[in-house]
Amino acid sequence: MKVGFIGLGVMGQSMVGHILDAGYELFVYNRTKSKADNLVEIGAIWLDSPREVAEQADVVITIVGYPKDIEEVYYGEQGLFNGAHSDSIFIDMTTSTPSLAIELAEKSKERGIGILDAPVTGGDVGAREGRLAVLVGGDEDVLEKARPVIESFAASITRFGESGAGQHAKVVNQIMVAGTMLGLAEMMAYAKQADLDLTKLVDTIGAGAASNRSLENYGPRIIKKDYSPGFFVKHFVKDLKIALDEAEKMSLDLPMTQLAHKLYTQLAEIGHADEGTQAIVKLWWD
Amino acid sequence: MKVGFIGLGVMGQSMVGHILDAGYELFVYNRTKSKADNLVEIGAIWLDSPREVAEQADVVITIVGYPKDIEEVYYGEQGLFNGAHSDSIFIDMTTSTPSLAIELAEKSKERGIGILDAPVTGGDVGAREGRLAVLVGGDEDVLEKARPVIESFAASITRFGESGAGQHAKVVNQIMVAGTMLGLAEMMAYAKQADLDLTKLVDTIGAGAASNRSLENYGPRIIKKDYSPGFFVKHFVKDLKIALDEAEKMSLDLPMTQLAHKLYTQLAEIGHADEGTQAIVKLWWD
Repeated sequence: MKVGFIGLGVMGQSMVGHILDAGYELFVYNRTKSKADNLVEIGAIWLDSPREVAEQADVVITIVGYPKDIEEVYYGEQGLFNGAHSDSIFIDMTTSTPSLAIELAEKSKERGIGILDAPVTGGDVGAREGRLAVLVGGDEDVLEKARPVIESFAASITRFGESGAGQHAKVVNQIMVAGTMLGLAEMMAYAKQADLDLTKLVDTIGAGAASNRSLENYGPRIIKKDYSPGFFVKHFVKDLKIALDEAEKMSLDLPMTQLAHKLYTQLAEIGHADEGTQAIVKLWWD
Repeated sequence: MKVGFIGLGVMGQSMVGHILDAGYELFVYNRTKSKADNLVEIGAIWLDSPREVAEQADVVITIVGYPKDIEEVYYGEQGLFNGAHSDSIFIDMTTSTPSLAIELAEKSKERGIGILDAPVTGGDVGAREGRLAVLVGGDEDVLEKARPVIESFAASITRFGESGAGQHAKVVNQIMVAGTMLGLAEMMAYAKQADLDLTKLVDTIGAGAASNRSLENYGPRIIKKDYSPGFFVKHFVKDLKIALDEAEKMSLDLPMTQLAHKLYTQLAEIGHADEGTQAIVKLWWD
């Protein structure tokens, strides 16, 4: 099976490494070509467009930034659909909207193409260690065909239902993360103001009822004032907006998610869009 | 060393069991006497007032409901201070205000009594398993004398500084828990509305970047509609109010904690004060 991969950001870089390690022939494309350099060195084959990747590969994975980037990669003149063949399987792992996932699935089915929405969780560390959780929407038989490729970088693969269900599950994940990040931000703000030993706190609280992955991953980084991106502020703003738009469609009021969106938007606007989500403490700290 | 224990709620019941298991002679008092019945059967000795407990015991642990209950237990005519002797050590494990902890410490020192503020985290499960995290403020030598007793139910004992520091650390813990509980509530609200398989979600998301103890403990209970209290809504309302009052004293704005206080107050007001904190989903579900 030949694999294509489009989108070589923080996550994509690591995922491609694992697919190569698993022995697949791999074709890559990225808007910024230089990001493919180190991957070409270890065996990836560069192609000049998504269209060419679709022509060469059986399974194409996309993980790009925003819904508009997905539209360009799939629908563009040099896009995936124009290179698709009868056995093509496309897997969009971008965190995107359930409605776009459904739309892509409809357009794929018209062409007889298999498609999955399969956003991931586990962050930069999970990607590096090949231990991502993959949240899948789409046909079961398509998933079964693509499963060996996905397994090369996944700790778990869970199908939540038809197209769009993977994106819905990812929204749920991001709502939960919004809670842990706001909790982490406010606990750090309080602790610093109360002059408590932050390292002692993160260790102690991280072992009790308040323990969570955000505290474990980002607590120590915040203490070291390391705001480098595992997950970009600007991407979290996008994810939270998707959550609120979808909630609104379902007449659902999510005040904590609204607050998270407001605070992260504010953080992006004052110049921290390209930092990691742990930079949220900057709304309290200098 | 003889031990006294005042406050036989969800937490106290389990903690007393571990102190008895460790072989200490143990005197107990509780406002509602019947809650001591099963403990007396396994060896605890009932006394009719905190004062009598203080007279008999070397180390007295208190874990009651609210700051006003602490004042009654310590300052009352039949209270601890009136039964104290020169070797008394009092340990307040109630989640209370840093300022009351400091006040109790001042009054204790006037009388030559050792005192610690030592709220715990780990919830009903941690108490049952004897694996609580104990957050201590107060003199180091007082802690060393009391340590063997505390160790009978603790997984960790961490001293954060002088009197009040233990309560500050607990506030930090509760702020973090406010974040995980609001995240859990809104993720469940969204997931149910989007018609996703909740058990699959809790399992998958509980293993990834969004993993946290609230999701792990309460996710399955919410799915079973089990709202029995591990930790009471009314006590969380109190804790969040303490957090906000202390934050205000430090000129600190904590919007997520404010939101959590607002939502939990609302939950208590519509009749769920005596349920567990996982009942927060009732603001969205029927």
